[in-house]
Amino acid sequence: MAFIFELPKEINDVLSLIINELGNLLNGVNMPPNLRESAMHYIHNKGKMIRPLLTLITTHTLGGNLMDAVNPAIAVELVHVATLLQDDIIDGHLMRRGSETPFKRYGTEYTILASDLLIAKAIEYSLKSKTRRITMELTSAALRLAIGQSYELEYKLNGKVDMNIYMRIIENKTASLISAAIVLGGYVADADSNTINLLRSLGEKLGAAYQIRDDIIDYLNLDKDNPKGLRSVDVNVIDALKAEGFSDPLKEAYRLFMGYMSEARAITASIRGGEVFAGIIDFLQDPLTKLIEGNKNQV
Amino acid sequence: MAFIFELPKEINDVLSLIINELGNLLNGVNMPPNLRESAMHYIHNKGKMIRPLLTLITTHTLGGNLMDAVNPAIAVELVHVATLLQDDIIDGHLMRRGSETPFKRYGTEYTILASDLLIAKAIEYSLKSKTRRITMELTSAALRLAIGQSYELEYKLNGKVDMNIYMRIIENKTASLISAAIVLGGYVADADSNTINLLRSLGEKLGAAYQIRDDIIDYLNLDKDNPKGLRSVDVNVIDALKAEGFSDPLKEAYRLFMGYMSEARAITASIRGGEVFAGIIDFLQDPLTKLIEGNKNQV
Repeated sequence: MAFIFELPKEINDVLSLIINELGNLLNGVNMPPNLRESAMHYIHNKGKMIRPLLTLITTHTLGGNLMDAVNPAIAVELVHVATLLQDDIIDGHLMRRGSETPFKRYGTEYTILASDLLIAKAIEYSLKSKTRRITMELTSAALRLAIGQSYELEYKLNGKVDMNIYMRIIENKTASLISAAIVLGGYVADADSNTINLLRSLGEKLGAAYQIRDDIIDYLNLDKDNPKGLRSVDVNVIDALKAEGFSDPLKEAYRLFMGYMSEARAITASIRGGEVFAGIIDFLQDPLTKLIEGNKNQV
Repeated sequence: MAFIFELPKEINDVLSLIINELGNLLNGVNMPPNLRESAMHYIHNKGKMIRPLLTLITTHTLGGNLMDAVNPAIAVELVHVATLLQDDIIDGHLMRRGSETPFKRYGTEYTILASDLLIAKAIEYSLKSKTRRITMELTSAALRLAIGQSYELEYKLNGKVDMNIYMRIIENKTASLISAAIVLGGYVADADSNTINLLRSLGEKLGAAYQIRDDIIDYLNLDKDNPKGLRSVDVNVIDALKAEGFSDPLKEAYRLFMGYMSEARAITASIRGGEVFAGIIDFLQDPLTKLIEGNKNQV
């Protein structure tokens, strides 16, 4: 979900500003170097910035002031980075994004504390935003992230997977923060409560679809950027569908993905400026459809 | 610092209400049992509730409405409990408050996630309070807690201690949250910014004094409730003072403690209703003074 496709210049400019602000996050704060380095690792070695971009795109689409989205967008990215640090510890990841993880390099202790630091900074940025509801939205997402991660832990410890546990994991672990990122944009743009609810549902559908898509791509071993398959959740939809007895789990996974896409598309129809989101849906859907067409003989 | 001494009935009533609310913290939220048990462990097996009591006492002293202090007091206790969970992991504590620690019983992973959950709930409660500054105060304390813990980690890893590192640890790890607890009460009571600043300084002095007192009691091995000496920080002021070359470090520690007490007392003189805080200072100071008098020959 790299939004390299024709982002309006205003959004790119604000994104650069956010990246710059993030780079200076801990300037002027005294702390042991190991704590600073762990906390800054995924900020220097940044990902696709999907969540802040979703906040910016939503703000822009709904006619909000992009500058008001800076603090919420920083906050949502910081929550995401904090979860990466914890994910490394919990899953014992030694490498991510092509380099040694902070957990591996600095140890569990500094990495836990770095995650605390980032969560505190996330709250701090969110509180500088125009409404308290932005902090509330992020807090609810953080709660669900912890629950989602612990369901994934349950799965890993007892090895059993079914669609029920799979859905609990991805709804809480992936969809929660994607959804929050979009809702934050709604708050920045002073969207009414009906629109906020639509944005939240849209985010939940997009988040689930995004995770299933990621699973399919991983299953087909087609992720060139991430050949070792380090993924946002360790449980794959294909395994869950196999466990449920589906004879063609890839087809079923794609059907599931398309179901979420279609629900998401239906929601966008009720949102002012929803065609922007429809564009994101196409962007997610079209390459996967081609992939599935080209891999029909794989299963 | 057990505030069993003549607490006004209103405060005891509100404290019972807080304990009851904390007991129901995760009701109605679906999550794996191990996550729930880790998160609830130190709520069921509760401590002296020093921090929420400080919030209530401050609110009451400054003429605020005690019911408005409920959410901030819950929030400050939840931050404290989250730090206990992390402290267990970082220091490898197997026992605390007379029973097996959540880290030992449920493992590092669930305990990290439980701490995330509690921090999210803390923010949630703080956001229900009357002003956003309550969440800001707690967030700044959380940031300092992470920094304090990481300085303690530095000390443990390289073994060197001096008064500079000792003060960095206790200011950030102990005094920060004690101070925040008191400041929250000030916000609840709509205190003016001058009073808030006085409360913050008072909290910093009391917090540092409390830690030094704890260190002295531990050093003299006189804590009957905690004979194994599981303490809020692992570095003792006596060792730090020895490293600085003091020939009578106990006397010097006591002198340091009395210095903070005297600074705290001076601050209370400028706070309306400050005699309540002066009572807390006496409560901390008098038994220690007797202890030191009775142990003059120990060093």
